[in-house]
Order: sequence, then C-alpha cells, then structure tokens
Amino acid sequence: MLDVQGQLEILRRGVEQIVPEGEFLKKLERSVRENRPLRVKYGIDPTGIDVHLGHTVPLRKLRQFQDLGHTAVIIIGNYTALVGDPSGRDETRSTLTKEQVAENARDYLKQVGRIIDLEKAEVHQNGDWFGKWEFLDVLDLMRRMTLGQISAREDFAKRIAAEKPVYLHECLYPLMQGWDSVEINADVELGGTEQLFSLMVARQLQPVRGQDPQVAMTMPILVGTDGVRRMGKSLGNYIGVADSAENQFGKVMSIPDEPMAQYFTLLTDIPAARIEEWLAPGSNPRDAKEALGKYVVAQYHGQVAADQAAAAFRRRSSGEDPDEIPIAYLSADKLDAEGRIAAPSLIKELGLESSTSNARRVIEGGGFNVGPHREPVSDPRAMIYVSDGLVVRVGKRKIAEIRLV
Amino acid sequence: MLDVQGQLEILRRGVEQIVPEGEFLKKLERSVRENRPLRVKYGIDPTGIDVHLGHTVPLRKLRQFQDLGHTAVIIIGNYTALVGDPSGRDETRSTLTKEQVAENARDYLKQVGRIIDLEKAEVHQNGDWFGKWEFLDVLDLMRRMTLGQISAREDFAKRIAAEKPVYLHECLYPLMQGWDSVEINADVELGGTEQLFSLMVARQLQPVRGQDPQVAMTMPILVGTDGVRRMGKSLGNYIGVADSAENQFGKVMSIPDEPMAQYFTLLTDIPAARIEEWLAPGSNPRDAKEALGKYVVAQYHGQVAADQAAAAFRRRSSGEDPDEIPIAYLSADKLDAEGRIAAPSLIKELGLESSTSNARRVIEGGGFNVGPHREPVSDPRAMIYVSDGLVVRVGKRKIAEIRLV
Repeated sequence: MLDVQGQLEILRRGVEQIVPEGEFLKKLERSVRENRPLRVKYGIDPTGIDVHLGHTVPLRKLRQFQDLGHTAVIIIGNYTALVGDPSGRDETRSTLTKEQVAENARDYLKQVGRIIDLEKAEVHQNGDWFGKWEFLDVLDLMRRMTLGQISAREDFAKRIAAEKPVYLHECLYPLMQGWDSVEINADVELGGTEQLFSLMVARQLQPVRGQDPQVAMTMPILVGTDGVRRMGKSLGNYIGVADSAENQFGKVMSIPDEPMAQYFTLLTDIPAARIEEWLAPGSNPRDAKEALGKYVVAQYHGQVAADQAAAAFRRRSSGEDPDEIPIAYLSADKLDAEGRIAAPSLIKELGLESSTSNARRVIEGGGFNVGPHREPVSDPRAMIYVSDGLVVRVGKRKIAEIRLV
Repeated sequence: MLDVQGQLEILRRGVEQIVPEGEFLKKLERSVRENRPLRVKYGIDPTGIDVHLGHTVPLRKLRQFQDLGHTAVIIIGNYTALVGDPSGRDETRSTLTKEQVAENARDYLKQVGRIIDLEKAEVHQNGDWFGKWEFLDVLDLMRRMTLGQISAREDFAKRIAAEKPVYLHECLYPLMQGWDSVEINADVELGGTEQLFSLMVARQLQPVRGQDPQVAMTMPILVGTDGVRRMGKSLGNYIGVADSAENQFGKVMSIPDEPMAQYFTLLTDIPAARIEEWLAPGSNPRDAKEALGKYVVAQYHGQVAADQAAAAFRRRSSGEDPDEIPIAYLSADKLDAEGRIAAPSLIKELGLESSTSNARRVIEGGGFNVGPHREPVSDPRAMIYVSDGLVVRVGKRKIAEIRLV
C-alpha cells in the first residue's frame, strides 16, 4: 500500500470537505499500518439516471480509492428510491414502482462499470435489508432523529419557508441512507456537497452497533456545459458517459473558459502544474479544451476514438466536411414541378432542425449553405434545386447528403 | 331505535365539539332511517392505566351510544403504545416492551368492562394490522402528511418552541390512530379535547379506501379532585374506578364546589334541571356532593355499597368511629420498659403517617387522639402508654386498633 502521505495527495484532490478530517487521517494511518483496506461507500438511487460527468466526480474518487487498494462499496438504493432523495431538491419527487427501480438499477450499474472496477467492488441493494423490516424496525430507526434536526436541513428549511410541502416519508430518507452505512460498516462515505447532512446521520447510528462512525467526504457539484448551473439531464447542459466520442468532445469544446479549472481538477488526473500552464493567461483556451476533451473521451471510448473525435472536430470547425457525411432521405414528392423546395422546409424535412421557424432563423443567421462550393443561402424565401447527392450544411456541425426517394 | 332528536339530546350532553356537526346529523338520520347502527370508535393505548373518572367521560359517552343501539368499537392500541401518544404531553414518552403492553391491555379491558358492555362491543388490537406491515406500508402512510401539518400540532409546536425534542417516530402516532379508523370503518370517534387533531387525521385517510370520513366528538377534560388540574394518576388527584366504595365516596366529598357542575354533567345522567336545583345558591353543597358521591359509587359498586359508604362517611365526619375499626399490629419491643412509645413514633409505626415528622405536624395541629374518650394529644414529645386494643385516631379519616405482638 502507498504510504499515508502519498494516498492523501491523491485522495484530497478536488475534495470539498472531509468531516471530521482528523478521524479520516487516523483511519488511513491504521489502514496502512494494518494493511487493512478502508470500506468506502457510495450510494445512488436508481431513479432512471443517465450517468453524466457530474456523477463521475464522486465515482472517480471511489475509483481512486480502489486503485489505492481500498474496498469500493456501492449501494444501489432500490428501497430508498421508493422514498426519493429530497437532497438539493425543492419539490417532492414522484413515486417509482418496484419494477421501474429494478430496471433502472440494472441499467445504472452498467454505466457505473465504465468508471468503477465492478469485479473488485462490493455491490449491495438496500432492499436486501429494508425489505425484511417490519413496522417496529422503522419506528426504532425514526426514534433516532427529532423533528428539529430534520427541519434544520437546508433543503427542507427552504421548502418549509417557501410553504412547499415536505412529506413525512421524505424525512426517512437520511435515516435510511445512514442505516445503509451500518449494514455495510462503512469507514468513509462519498457524496456531493449537498449530501453532507445525510452523510453525517450515519455517525449517530453506527455506534448503536458498536461501529466506528464513518467519515464524510464531499465533492463539489460539477457545473454544466453552460458554465452556470449544476450539470443535469433536465437542464440540457450535461455530457453523458454513454454519449458518442464526437458528442462528448464537441460538448467539452463548447464549455466556457471559467469552469475549465474545475473540469480539469475533477475529471482528470492531470497534475496541477500542467493544468496551470494550460490555463495561464496568454495561453490559448482552445488548446486546454482540446486536451481536456481528449482526456475525457479517452476514459470512455479509448485514446484512438478520442484522437479521431478531436481531428474530426478540428476539420469541421476549420470548415472542412467530415470524412463520412451522413445520408438523409428526401421524398421526391416534396419537390415542386421544377425540382425545388423552400429552404426552411428542406432543412426541416432532412431533420437538421426541429421546425421550419428554427430553420428560418438559422438561414437568416448565415448558417446554411449547399453544394460542393458551399453556396451560402441567407434568404429564408429561397427555393433550393435538389438533385440526388446534394450536400447541405446547417450551422457548424450539422451536415447531410441528400438521397431522393 | 330512538328518533334523531331523542338521541341527540342524550348524545350532546357534556360534549365539547362535534366536527363537522352537519355530517354527524346526516349519519344519525341515515342510521335511524335505515336502522343501521353507527360504528363508534374509542381507542386507548394500554400504557399501564388505572382507569379513573377522567377516562370514564368518553367511555360513558360510548356506553350511551351502546344503549341507543349503536356499535361500540374499542381499539386497544397495543401497537401505537409502542410509539407513545404525544397528545397533550410535553415530553417524549418512554418505550414499553411488547410484553408490558400485552399485560396492560388485559388489565385495561377488565377495567373498561365496568363501564362498557363488552359482550356487545367490538374489541380490536391494532397490532393485528400494523403487525403485518412492511416498511413500504409505513412509507405509504407517511406520504399522507407533511412536516408542516405535524409541526402545527399544538403540543408539538409547544415542544418545538421550548426546544424540547419531538422524535420522528412520534409523528407517526396520529397517522396510526387515523389508520385504525380505516381498518374498522368508523362513523364517529370519541376523544378528549386535546385529541381533535388526531381524530381529524382519519378523515384524510378514509376516502383512500372509499369510506365516508368519520366525525370527531370531543369531551372536556375532567378536572381532578383538587379542582385545578386535569385528573391524573401522577398528580394524585384522581378517583379510580377500581377504588373502594369508601375511598371513592370520600374523594368526591373532598372536591371543591367549583367543578361540581362539570362532575354532575360528565359523570351522571341526572337531568340538568335537578342538577341546577342542587347547585343553586342557598342550597347546601354538601347535599349535592353526597348525591354525586352516591351516584358515582353506585355505578361501580352498586346502590347498597354507595349508601353504606355515604353513611360511614357521615358517621366519621360527625366524629363517630366507623363500624369496623382496622387492626394495626405493633411490636411490643418498640415500647420502653414502662410500656410507652413517643407519640410520633407510634403514629409512624402504625402506618398512619409516612414519617415521624409528618406525625409531629399532625399532633401539633390537634389531629391526634387516643382511647375510648378521644383524649387529645397535642405535645409531640408526649409518651403514650400502649395496651392491647387501644384505639388511636389521626386526622378525620384515619383510625386503628392496636394489637401488640
């Protein structure tokens, strides 16, 4: 095992808080001394998640623990999912059925396998214990927390202040999450910043079973590709681990400059000194983004795909067409007697924009051209002569070769 | 069945609130029209109760419903007892074991049988349903209430304001009580004034099962024999239904004048006009108390015992010794060489006072006399010559005939 100092250097990277830090040090020292791996817990509710880079922040930390010889313990909250994690939410979640949850759990684990070495990890579903509980067991758990403690939770307090209902069953969530730690005897639990309250609950419960309380390690919330709000599916500002290489790379290139340092720190192992060079004033942020994009893509698709995605992107942004132009079919009866179609209709029929009004906007903005000579079309009333094999381009990244059918 | 108006006259007596009153009328009308008894619920947690006159207020109301042909449904909260009813309490109750609860339930039902016709009543233990519940069933129930609704409860709000903890499991209590009504399809639930919140919860739950919501009927809290605080075991101001006839009668006679109207209304069926006569200015409150005392005692010990208790009380308060003087044993070696013992020690040894200092106070107050001629002893240093058969009197109601052993 690497010595304590060496481990700390790796493990502290990008971490927001370790609570209490002193206990973490002691646990780590004992682990090295006795050559006993720490049990590091990360729990997630299978509520239908497209794992995105935001989720990979704690998952990558978990992988670091694994690589240092510790035990990753993944809790699939198939039972807690039926309650719904209220953390950081401002409304009550809708209820999932057992079947949806089971399906989501399988799907989620497949995605997690892209970051975690599942062969070496322990995976538990908390329905394994909670499913056996009776009413009295629930009561025993509820006895461990007061209404005051629960109401003081930041997200609950906000909802109460805004007069939005907090349902009683939601109060159970942090207690259930805490009990998971007891069941697996966790040494450390990882989570996002907003999870700190929940991560600390376990510390009240573990001594009941004679266990050392766990240490909470929180990670910052990754900002989305808009550079403003947290990365999230519903906000459309996310990069999914299952996205194609080209898509991932393109999205990284679209990120504003400000969050670059955060992305580098949380999503790569590139040494801090090298990151600083890239982000230093005077250096080209494009280079930094390209390096970041390649690093991210390589993790999920390999180095070759990453290099190809970067090359394709460069070609496209320098104005060259990609090596392979996707085919789009167009029904010949959309054309008038002279073989023409209105430009906005063409763009919509080819599926390059979702509506003719969007298409019209792109055309007016100068983002539409056709043919081998990239003839620009900026009048939305223009009629386009379509022949089989015509190439049309919309914006910087959308291109199609027409097949008339 | 008696007509609606006739039933209402009986049922409204001594009632604090009927909520909502309109629905109660409709239920009663339908009951008479269709000759279908109302299902009237009264629940109690077997937490080790000496049933006293305070408890008999709702129980007597339940008996009135029975006598009018309705169905009394008694819920023994053997499962809720494990949570502890927070109503009207200002602290968290201690936890009972299942065995204690079962023992208490048996004992409690025996006492209730003095007021309710158990042959005709339905008796349920709510462990019969809650005992089969899983975690998810509890969650489903908790979904029905918000933190805000719970915190607004008067007793919880008080505890929160006083920074006394309200534990989460206590929040379940009103929901469990409400669910009991669903299980037995209650039309009416009886309870004390402070129960109104809990009685109303069922109205949210019953429609889930397609039931008509129940109506809440609340009774005032009976004041104790001190005339100030609610009757309660811990306050030492209660009259138990299992107390002896003499004890019950004596305690009624000790009540101050103010609460007499409440006692008459809630504990007897004596017509209002007759009560007014007794309590009219100028009439002797002693007569009213004697009538009340006889009425109360007759309910639990029969008319003969009630008359005897009244007669014995009168004799005692007019200074006569009772017919049967209780024997108290005194060890001869407590006496000095001359056969004497200090007066305070004598009183204490006979068990007539709990300590010599209390005894000394009684002596100084002139409350101690000995022998057939009631010789007063007012000097606490006095030495009393004791012979076998000596009668001693302490205060107005304590007397003993000494047997030397």
